[in-house]
Order: sequence, then structure tokens, then C-alpha cells
Amino acid sequence: MKTDIQIAQEAQMEHIKEIAKRLEIGEDDLEFYGKYKAKFTEELWEEVKDRPDGKLILVTAINPTPAGEGKTTTSVGLGEAFGKLNKKAVIALREPSLGPCFGIKGGAAGGGYAQVVPMEDLNLHFTGDFHAITSANNLLAAMLDNHIQQGNILNIDPNQIVWKRCLDMNDRVLRNIVVGLGRKVDGTVREDHFIITVASEIMAILCLAADMKDLKERLGRIIVAYNYEGAPVTAKELNAVGSMAALLKDALKPNLIQTLEHTPAIIHGGPFANIAHGCNSVRATKTALKLADYVITEAGFGADLGAEKFFDIKCRMAGLKPNAVVLVATVRALKYNGGVAKTDLSAENLDALKVGIVNLEKHIENLQNYGVPVVVTLNRFMTDTDAELDFVREFCESRGCEFSLSEVWEKGGEGGIDLAQKVIKTIEEKPSNFKVLYEDNLSIKEKIETIAKKIYGASEVTYDGQASKAIEKIENLGFATMPVCMAKNQYSLSDDPTLLGRPTNFPIHIREVYVSAGAGFVVAITGTVMTMPGLPKKPAAEGIDVNEDGVITGLF
Amino acid sequence: MKTDIQIAQEAQMEHIKEIAKRLEIGEDDLEFYGKYKAKFTEELWEEVKDRPDGKLILVTAINPTPAGEGKTTTSVGLGEAFGKLNKKAVIALREPSLGPCFGIKGGAAGGGYAQVVPMEDLNLHFTGDFHAITSANNLLAAMLDNHIQQGNILNIDPNQIVWKRCLDMNDRVLRNIVVGLGRKVDGTVREDHFIITVASEIMAILCLAADMKDLKERLGRIIVAYNYEGAPVTAKELNAVGSMAALLKDALKPNLIQTLEHTPAIIHGGPFANIAHGCNSVRATKTALKLADYVITEAGFGADLGAEKFFDIKCRMAGLKPNAVVLVATVRALKYNGGVAKTDLSAENLDALKVGIVNLEKHIENLQNYGVPVVVTLNRFMTDTDAELDFVREFCESRGCEFSLSEVWEKGGEGGIDLAQKVIKTIEEKPSNFKVLYEDNLSIKEKIETIAKKIYGASEVTYDGQASKAIEKIENLGFATMPVCMAKNQYSLSDDPTLLGRPTNFPIHIREVYVSAGAGFVVAITGTVMTMPGLPKKPAAEGIDVNEDGVITGLF
Repeated sequence: MKTDIQIAQEAQMEHIKEIAKRLEIGEDDLEFYGKYKAKFTEELWEEVKDRPDGKLILVTAINPTPAGEGKTTTSVGLGEAFGKLNKKAVIALREPSLGPCFGIKGGAAGGGYAQVVPMEDLNLHFTGDFHAITSANNLLAAMLDNHIQQGNILNIDPNQIVWKRCLDMNDRVLRNIVVGLGRKVDGTVREDHFIITVASEIMAILCLAADMKDLKERLGRIIVAYNYEGAPVTAKELNAVGSMAALLKDALKPNLIQTLEHTPAIIHGGPFANIAHGCNSVRATKTALKLADYVITEAGFGADLGAEKFFDIKCRMAGLKPNAVVLVATVRALKYNGGVAKTDLSAENLDALKVGIVNLEKHIENLQNYGVPVVVTLNRFMTDTDAELDFVREFCESRGCEFSLSEVWEKGGEGGIDLAQKVIKTIEEKPSNFKVLYEDNLSIKEKIETIAKKIYGASEVTYDGQASKAIEKIENLGFATMPVCMAKNQYSLSDDPTLLGRPTNFPIHIREVYVSAGAGFVVAITGTVMTMPGLPKKPAAEGIDVNEDGVITGLF
Repeated sequence: MKTDIQIAQEAQMEHIKEIAKRLEIGEDDLEFYGKYKAKFTEELWEEVKDRPDGKLILVTAINPTPAGEGKTTTSVGLGEAFGKLNKKAVIALREPSLGPCFGIKGGAAGGGYAQVVPMEDLNLHFTGDFHAITSANNLLAAMLDNHIQQGNILNIDPNQIVWKRCLDMNDRVLRNIVVGLGRKVDGTVREDHFIITVASEIMAILCLAADMKDLKERLGRIIVAYNYEGAPVTAKELNAVGSMAALLKDALKPNLIQTLEHTPAIIHGGPFANIAHGCNSVRATKTALKLADYVITEAGFGADLGAEKFFDIKCRMAGLKPNAVVLVATVRALKYNGGVAKTDLSAENLDALKVGIVNLEKHIENLQNYGVPVVVTLNRFMTDTDAELDFVREFCESRGCEFSLSEVWEKGGEGGIDLAQKVIKTIEEKPSNFKVLYEDNLSIKEKIETIAKKIYGASEVTYDGQASKAIEKIENLGFATMPVCMAKNQYSLSDDPTLLGRPTNFPIHIREVYVSAGAGFVVAITGTVMTMPGLPKKPAAEGIDVNEDGVITGLF
């Protein structure tokens, strides 16, 4: 069987200007990055912004399992299937992070015959957006420590610095460090931390910014530290906004590449899905809606985290109104949720499927609660039996969802035609009555409790003392109207990753709360969140190579 | 008076494909990065490599002073002047570092009407080469610490790790840090250091690599640490070569931009000029020689550091034979060398000029010693008097050098026509008999002493005990035949920055010696070398901004 990178490298890509032509975009509105990547110019947005919007389709999934769900593969394949049906469609996805490519996770370009290409470029430096974010993040950190070094006029308390440095690398030893050792000229000694670039608030800001003006305002609101009186110190007070914005000038522009079947794919931004909102950029989604009749986007992790944040943070802030949701599952993953071990997933097991399908059921209910019609799709595996597939189909249809089998991994767009037809039918027949889950004017705790109870199914929410104190402080600082961004393990609807299926009667415990004032949300953390991954025993990096013709191998 | 960035932004740039056409390069051999930047494809080199070489001209300078010499401005203006004379010329320069743009130094794109553009792009992310180097450097660091974490099969001694992390940022608090704090999963606690990206050995390697094969071999030879037995541990042993090379795949390709007068400028690589060799890439220079009749390149700092390393490291390794050297000075800088305070440089002072010109004299002698004919050029200032200019002219001509006044800052290529004519005349009339200063088979100490005595004019060389021990170890490891890369303050021919003019009877003290086995040279350090700059009291970053049309201000 061919690997994803082999399939990708055998692809006959079209010059990116040909892909742009399918969207009626001329060369003048493109900035090429080689032959197969381009950024949209600022002028393009001005040209298209008054057009009517296409239909917005969110692809989300049940809680992720080791069995794999194939959300990005479905998104890409669905886009290709629209192409097969001669519909004008665009895929709008997140950019993958460089660091994890060298660890265990691999890249994020879809899989099989439903991939975006060039996958090597996308997974490595792409158009430099993440490097720009890393630079802006670390410039702000350097200016902060330099401010202290040069007299500390702002009275910053070195023990209350909340801004962290970042790198797009899995590097565990940088999680907890001490900086400023040496002589007086080498800075003030303090504890510091590196996070991975996708966890930087600047990533979230770039993805939520409407335009350069909004970007700068958001950058200016970033709280980097608190002073000795406990008042916040912002990036604006450090005079860092202009330089950061200059570094982000090109990163703010969406990137265009293509699928294996030449469907246009706008790939832009990629914030963490726990401490941030896990969606591609607002700018990219809005542009895509002006360029095509159907826009397929996705959000990180399962629907409890990804879709919730897509709706309650991104759609709320950007005024987006999704028309349909595609909820991805696999028979294997549902059986895993029903208690089957990873090694036994290939055997038919209707009993386990019936037990595990409650996870799908809860996500369907949640999504329907937002007023958006749902299409459920199963990524088909060789080992799925007709009885299993029929059971899931009937289950979904009985809950008012269209159902489709997807074979896009194996067949590309051809394998997603039924899914595309079901999505079109849903959009045509079922109007979306999208509404956010909670109103701005609820208190922070009320928002957290609404998400925990309505989406996760929790019975109650408990708080660490310091989390409650932090909420009080955040509300006193005037951030009470912001939406809440929940950081929770992605494997369970609860905050315990071992509780599969549809857990009930569990509490959600909030350990830490802080405000990302630039991004515009309050982060509520359950459990522990890893913001700097490590490399495994045998890093993927050891298997990656490039030959003298520039052909890369070992990337997945 | 207009600022450099104003002049640059008013420029009517041509599309980079038009610039490439002047070199008879078609679109197929270019990878565009927007409209005004491109990389050469790998195929271009294959197409041109058997052509005869053009003439290679090195631009170097006297020891730098606060008065400013304008070496890059001269290089750019000279290239433009060749254009005015309808000669086919290419400029081949280093890429500037992002970090210092936000500090005190500003960018490095030339000045006035002798600039390469787009200067904002060049000074910020450009085509991402430095980001790729940062990533490769830090991947190697992460794999090193992860190796220790995962069992340390290679028996690495955490107290003998020599590989440092890097960022392209002026960030003093990262000079000396402790990493690996926290729990067991957070790594092994040890002292570590960040350097600025241009100081990474990977930068030097990229600049010296002939091709991908050579790049990988050099990356593999990098010594990252020593084991408990004192034996070196290499990047190859960490299985990091393929991934690093994959990250550097595009960074290895030279970049094409243009001057304000549309002269092609190949800008590629930018290693430090103290702990590394301070020259643009071998790949860029060799490609340039195949594309044009005249190639203008430069080397970092003054001729004692820059030209020496250009000749003895770059030309030696790459088999280059320079045809002429342009030695840049200013009347102001020569008077400063003659003891005039920075504030008094505008007044005529022939006596001081006569005292200070010995600095120029020594550099002329040094350069002539390499067998390469020398053209001296003075960057003309308003305040220079005819008597001063005449004195320098006669001084140079009496030493067998052509002399030219340059006004390229004010007039662009027009102001460098005389200089270009003198360079052409020199190349036509004076054959170059280039030879390196010392042979490979001298010992490391003999090489150091040859450079110190013949180039700097030192009376003797002394060594710290540990430097002598390091030399012995390096020779025992089999690196004795490598050239030496001297790290010395750039302001004086000696290792004391306050000794201006032409100091005599001074010792050179070698404090530290180590091998850059991948780059292929032995670094000998006099005094202290700053490999991670800091930000000043009022960083340039505070004055940089970008408006809603994407126009950047405050960059210089």
C-alpha cells in the first residue's frame, strides 16, 4: 500500500494560478510562494467583500480514539466530491504545526486520496506564517525582559509575568527554564517557559482578527504581566504592537493550495484546540465564503471542544452562520467507545457498537442544539460489516440526520459523492437556525457551567480556590462579557480521558482560569494542559530524509 | 532628506521575472515568493554549471568606525554602475538577520540610492531561510536532549554539550539559562545557552555547502557534545541529518531580488563574521559567476576579518579565485583612526588623515599579499575637502592601487561609474595571482600565528591553557588540516578595540578554541564574543509600525 507521502508526491499538481482561476482569481491577486502555493493579496478581500456568502459547512467528529476518525480526510474528500458534482467548493483548513511532524503525530494534510498538496511544504515551513508568529511572540518576550532590564518604568513584577516564549518544536526541556543567568548585562533571573507556537496567544489573535486594524488592536490588548500593584501590563504599553504587526503582515494573508483533485484549499492559521479555539482563520473563512458556493471547514478535536468553540467563539466573534455540520465517526471508533480493545476492533461487534454509539448520540444532540442540521458520515473501513453500517445508519436517520458512508481515503472525491449529495440536500431542505449556546452577558461561571452541563453532560462544576479568585479578578478587569475557551482532554466528554461513551453524573473541575485579552476569550482549564510537547522514544525525525533531487521521505 | 525606507518604498520595482530575464533565466527556473522575490530552482544550477565563470570582485573595508564606511552601499552602487555601463553584473550579498533590526543596528540592504529592494521583506522574514536554519538548529537540540531523556545510549555527558539552541532575536536573558526543570518527564536539568541564528554552525554550513549531498555530510559531522569518555558525539549519531536537511531544502536555494536600478541581486546566507566566516553562500557566488560577467560580493567587518576569511576559508573551500578587491574607506573614518573625535569629523584635518591612513595602508598591503589587485574607493561625504580627497588618492596610487570617489549613496549607479571603470581597468590590466595565506598542512597554532602576525601585525600569540589543550584535542581528533576562523573585535587590527590606526608590537591572546566540524573550520577566539545580542534602552522595535495598507515604517 502506498504511503500518504508517496500518493502526494505522485500527484500531478496544477500551477497554483490555475487553481486560483477556478475561483476567478487572477494573478494580480496572488502572491506566489513557488509554483504550488500562493497568498491572497490584501486587495482581493476588498474586491470580493461585498459579494453574497456561500454555504458554510463545519466538519467535526466524535471524541477522538486511537482507532482514528479521519476528520481532515473527510473535509478534503468532501471538497473533492463537490468538484465531481461540478459545484464550486473551497476547503478552509488549519495549517499544521512543524514541531509535531518530528514527534509522533505526523502532519495534517488529510490522507490517502483525500489530501492537500504539496504535503511536504504544508507540513514543514509552508509560507512561513508560524515562523512569523514565533518571531512576533518572542520579540514581545524580549521587549518585556528588556523593559525590566532598562529600568522597569512600568513596574512589572518579574514573578507575575504571564507571557511565555515559544518555538514550533517539540522540546520538553524548554517547558520550565530559568533565564537571565550570568552577569548584570545578561538580564534579570526569573523562571520562564516555552510553549509550542500554536499555543501562542498571537496564533489565536491572527486567526480571529478581521483585518490589520483589528489585529493591531488585539495585539495591543495582550496582557504580558502584572505590575507590583496587580494591574495588567499590555503589549501596547511595551510599544511592541507596530513591530509585531509588521512581522505578521504577510502571515495575515490566507494561503491557497490544492487537493489531489485540484480543489482549491485555503489553509490558514492553526491555534491549539484546548487553550485556544482550534479553528482556521476568520479571514480565510470569510474570504472562502465570498469565493465559492460551498465552504468546508473544520475545528480541532471532537465536537465537544472543536465545534463548541467554532460556534461559541469563532462564529460569535466573526458573525458567521454555519449552514450544516458533518459529524465524522467510524464503526471502529464507536466500538472502541463501547469498550472493545484497540486490537479487537476488526471483528464485528454489534453489542459494543450499540453501547458505544451513545457518544455519537450526544454529539448529534449537542450540534442540533445549536440549530444547525447535522449529516453523519462514517469513514468506511474494510472490516466494517453491513450489519454494523446499517445499525449506525438507522440510528442517525431516526435522529433526524442524513447519513452517508465515505470512502474518500481510498477513492478521493468519487468516494464522497454520496456525502456531498446528502450535505447539499440537507442545506436545501433544512434551514439552519444557528444560535450560540450562551449570551455574552452571563457571568464567567455561568458560561462555564452552561458548556459543562449542556455540552459535556456534567452534573456540576467545581473550582480550585485560585480559579475562583482568577475569575473574580478577570471580571473586575472588565472581561466578563468574553466567551469562555475550555481546555479539556479531548478523549472524553468529561474531564477524565478514560470515561468513554456518554458519561453521566460527573463533575467538571476547573483548575485554572486566565484571560487571553487579545484573542478575546477567557481560558478555563480542567486537568493539566500540555503546551509544549516532547519527542517520543523514537522520534519521527529519525526517519525523515531528503535526497539530492530534493525529494523528502519519511514525513507522514 | 528621505530615509532609506522612504526611498525604497518609492522605488518602482520590476517583477522579479523581468530581473531574471536580464540573466537569461526563464520562469521555469524560478520559485516566486511574491512578485519581487524568487529562489533559483535546483535545475538552474545543473543548466549553468559548465559555463565559464565571470569575474569575482570582493568589496571589503578598513576597520569599521562609528563614522560608517558604507560597504554594502558601495557593493550595491557598484553593481548598479556596471548596469549603467551596460555590463552584465550581479551582486551577491548576505541576508540580514531579523533580530538586530529590532535593536540598534537596523537592517542591511545598502543605503540611499544604492539599496536592494524590497528592503522590508529582506530585513524581516525574506524567503524564510533563517527561520529554516533556526528550526534545524533547534530540532537538533531537541533530539539531543531527548536522546538523553530516552536512555542516553550514546553516553552523552550533559556537562559537555556544546550544541546551543538559537533564535533570530536580540534577547539577552536567553544567553545563559537552565533547562529541564520540573518533573522527570520534563527532561534533564542542565545549563544551556541560546545564540542568535546567524551564529549557528548550521548557518555556516549552509553557506559553505556545495550541494545537498555536501550539506548532509557537513550536518552529519556537527559535534553536538562529548561523551563521558571525551569522544565527540555527532548529529549523524543522533539520526538528525535527514530531518535537518529536509528543513533546509529550500533554504539551500539562492534568492534573487533587485537593486533600486533593477540590477539583479542574489542574496543568500549570512553567517557571523567572528565565530564564522561572514560570507554569503558558496552556492550563490558560484551561481552568480555562471550568470554574469561581473560578480560583486562582500564579507563581514573589515578586511582583517572579512577578507581574510573570504580568501582563506570560502575561496579555499570552494575553489574560488577573486579577480579584484574593492577596499572601502571614508575620509571621516580615516580621520577617526587618526584620533579625531566623532563629533569633529566634519572639519578638514589633514594631519589626522595622515596619521589615520595607516589603517588603510595595512589593509592594502594585506590584500596585495593575497595576489589580488586592489581598488580603493572613498564614499564621499559633503564635508570631505579636495585636499583630503587628493591626499588619499595620491596615497593609494603610490601603492599601486586604482582610486575612485564613490557617490552611490546620493546618486545610485551614476555615482559609481568611475569606480566601475577603475575595477574593469584593474581586472583587464592586472592579472590576479590569488593564493591563500597559509597551507592546510600547517598546525593550528602555526595557522593562527600566520594570521595574527601577517594580517593583524601582531608581535606574538599567547594562549590560555585551555585553548592550548583544546588545540591539542582538536588535532588529535583529526581536524588539524582545517583552516582557522578567527573571532576578534572588528574595530582594531589588534584584539584591543581601542587601538586604532595600525598598531604594532601587540600580542594576540587566544582565549578559547573549538572546532566547527560541520562547517569545516577551527574557531580561535580572542577576547569575548557576543553570540546573543541584547536590545538597547530604546529598541528600534518601538518605532516600527505597519499601516492598514501593509506599508511598514520605522525600519532602517
